[in-house]
Amino acid sequence: MTEPTQSLMFAKSQHDRYLSELKQFLSIPSISTLSEHKPDIQRAAEWVAAQMTGMGLRNIAIHPTAWHPVVYGEWLGAPGKPTVLMYGHYDVQPVDPLNEWVSPPFEPTVRGDNLYARGASDMKGQVHLSLKALEALLKHDELGVNVKIIVEGEEEIGSPSLGAFIDQHQDKLKCDVALNPDVGIPRPDLPALVYGLRGLAYFEIWVQGPDHDLHSGVFGGSVHNPAQVLCELIAGLHDAEGRVILPGFYDPVRALSGAERAELAREPFSDEAWRQMTGAPQLYGERGYTTLERLGARPTLEVNGLLSGFTGEGSKTVLPAKAMAKISMRLVPHQEPQVVEQQLRVYLQQHTPPTVRWEIKNLAGGPAVLVNRETEGVRAAAAALEATFGVQPVFTLEGGSVPVVGLIQRKLGVDSILMGFGLPDDNLHSPNEKLHLPNYYRGIEAVMRFFHLLAQSSADSVHRAGD
Amino acid sequence: MTEPTQSLMFAKSQHDRYLSELKQFLSIPSISTLSEHKPDIQRAAEWVAAQMTGMGLRNIAIHPTAWHPVVYGEWLGAPGKPTVLMYGHYDVQPVDPLNEWVSPPFEPTVRGDNLYARGASDMKGQVHLSLKALEALLKHDELGVNVKIIVEGEEEIGSPSLGAFIDQHQDKLKCDVALNPDVGIPRPDLPALVYGLRGLAYFEIWVQGPDHDLHSGVFGGSVHNPAQVLCELIAGLHDAEGRVILPGFYDPVRALSGAERAELAREPFSDEAWRQMTGAPQLYGERGYTTLERLGARPTLEVNGLLSGFTGEGSKTVLPAKAMAKISMRLVPHQEPQVVEQQLRVYLQQHTPPTVRWEIKNLAGGPAVLVNRETEGVRAAAAALEATFGVQPVFTLEGGSVPVVGLIQRKLGVDSILMGFGLPDDNLHSPNEKLHLPNYYRGIEAVMRFFHLLAQSSADSVHRAGD
Repeated sequence: MTEPTQSLMFAKSQHDRYLSELKQFLSIPSISTLSEHKPDIQRAAEWVAAQMTGMGLRNIAIHPTAWHPVVYGEWLGAPGKPTVLMYGHYDVQPVDPLNEWVSPPFEPTVRGDNLYARGASDMKGQVHLSLKALEALLKHDELGVNVKIIVEGEEEIGSPSLGAFIDQHQDKLKCDVALNPDVGIPRPDLPALVYGLRGLAYFEIWVQGPDHDLHSGVFGGSVHNPAQVLCELIAGLHDAEGRVILPGFYDPVRALSGAERAELAREPFSDEAWRQMTGAPQLYGERGYTTLERLGARPTLEVNGLLSGFTGEGSKTVLPAKAMAKISMRLVPHQEPQVVEQQLRVYLQQHTPPTVRWEIKNLAGGPAVLVNRETEGVRAAAAALEATFGVQPVFTLEGGSVPVVGLIQRKLGVDSILMGFGLPDDNLHSPNEKLHLPNYYRGIEAVMRFFHLLAQSSADSVHRAGD
Repeated sequence: MTEPTQSLMFAKSQHDRYLSELKQFLSIPSISTLSEHKPDIQRAAEWVAAQMTGMGLRNIAIHPTAWHPVVYGEWLGAPGKPTVLMYGHYDVQPVDPLNEWVSPPFEPTVRGDNLYARGASDMKGQVHLSLKALEALLKHDELGVNVKIIVEGEEEIGSPSLGAFIDQHQDKLKCDVALNPDVGIPRPDLPALVYGLRGLAYFEIWVQGPDHDLHSGVFGGSVHNPAQVLCELIAGLHDAEGRVILPGFYDPVRALSGAERAELAREPFSDEAWRQMTGAPQLYGERGYTTLERLGARPTLEVNGLLSGFTGEGSKTVLPAKAMAKISMRLVPHQEPQVVEQQLRVYLQQHTPPTVRWEIKNLAGGPAVLVNRETEGVRAAAAALEATFGVQPVFTLEGGSVPVVGLIQRKLGVDSILMGFGLPDDNLHSPNEKLHLPNYYRGIEAVMRFFHLLAQSSADSVHRAGD
């Protein structure tokens, strides 16, 4: 196997600079869901564009969208060779509960092997390692393929503008394969390629009883408490087996084949190690499936948030006017977010008593995806991972959702190679998010090897099954 | 009937001063449940003490307690005549949701006949009107009875220090009857005396699953969602008839007699007018009882607050570590808060799955009370109300709780005369709390007449049934 030797040597000498740049990137609080962070979103986009400029990419642009901008850059110096569309996002999740962070979320701090900051793993670290791999290859003329990069600012709110952006730039974004590092691996020493991701349907449900908060003594016993009604509606969403009871929810869900179950069972996975990582007293889920099957191949419904009445210190005897729940479903292939929304509406229609009013908002969504594992692109990625980690990668199903993978599949007709370096204990979306620095550096090497290997393929062979 | 003529005339000339003083009192944000308002609590106590000084009361003192101080003052210039212990509280409820207030809660604002501010009705307005009645009577030498006053700062958190305060000052607080204006009347033109109040038991319940917030995609399907578990626990607390299903909850509840039901049915009450006041689409409650029966004579269980996970703008795909509910029960006579707490603990023990941990905190509580209606004190109050409003008062059961009434009954051996001037639409504990100013002025007159009439009784006849 040929190696991008100079680039690999160069990258090893640049760890201090890489870390210092990444800390800059992580110190920008680019939280996409909170409108007060709009200026930070803009700063993060500009930071990415400046990185692209420094690397020598061309046609760099910050494209405005209906909400947060998409940063674009390209290098098309390898005619006849494959064109890779590299995807990333520079936005991050909110940080609450803030008081559980050991160091402030936007003051990146190294403790041991880890760098702690919101977005360290999801996914500023992964965006940055991909850019650094390209930078080294370009500097030493070892890239050998064409690269187009989009880095968006709306992934954490479900990428609502990305579809329109791709539609507007169909020609510009034409490519042979996509590379998406917004995924992870099971253990620091075990690389992986993800071939399936769950979809998402995210809702906010409001139940309103009285038109203002009431005194629970004066009025208690005469009106229906909307927080109680909301709890009853939520309680009714699962049966005793842990199954979601929305009518028709499981109809399109494909049963796992014996071969798939056998392959998942071969994955190195310990229920007890997973439980310890969560800190829960016991694991839990739909009866009749292993934990890995439930995580990768079965849909779920989760309560993401609850709010009603008085939640401060001490006691306030209020009968609340309103109660709110954020509820989301992780979907598997063939489940459609629109269909699931309709099922939820029918459920609420049928089960909400006439003593209250209800309302539902669709906040985000995207279908699940499965990608073709038998292409030259995937082979190049697998070989790059094996050369870097010294062990063959496993193929995994991931529980999270990356709506852009489905978007790119539908709109540009190419699959994504899902090669990322996050770890299960990275505390994504949680306090104390972290990035495992040894794997961040290994990630740079793996991405360099991937491009270098891909350069040995022709443009039209990269998305076809190899020999 | 003899009248305190000079005091009545004087009071009518003082409306502007009364209103301006009351606005001062209401502008102090003395929220007892929030520790950051401790200095405001102190200011409110000092404001009450200054009022007492201005009126010529004696032995005025601000007594520290374990938490918020009790203000005391007395006038004992009528030897051989009855001694009345007047009760009030200068603390108020929190103000959230703040954005629903038309004018800021601590900037008292008159609109039409009403004065809007937190505490206007519950109960700074009622404390102030009682003090103004005493002030006028003392100024014109028309009081004729002995008065002791306690104004506490912990009523809205369940009066936790008042029992110890009464124990420490048994002799000082010795009295023949208590007067408590922390109640209301059904309509502006219909005065009332309350003879029963529900008790309270207030809890905070925590359910914890994982030991930190998790990514709902990466971990959803492998651990039990604590918000879902909490909703299921809350949903299980009522049956389809609206009854609380805690084991033994209704065992001590006395069935309403036919005579009591008939008396309640005679009270002027319109379900539709009540519904309109709440703004709820329909009324609701335990099957088999009228609204007034449910409000006054049946216990309830309410969710006062819910909090879990992400509750901000937009979507955050978090599987929360914890979920919290504030839950309180309104109790009727013979139900004990300690017994109800034990029933709730047994319920949680039996119904919480082993996939989560739970915890419960007792935040406030006190038993229900019934007071003797057939005493000279109650007759004097009824006559004072009739002279002021021009119509006989009705006797009512109130849904709210005033734990101090039970405390005074047990520790000092006297009943309270529950004569207040709040209205059902005063928005107690809610945004836009208000005081109906015409009844505030009428209240001053009624309290003056009450003391003046009571002066015709001897000390030892006042708490006995009259002829």
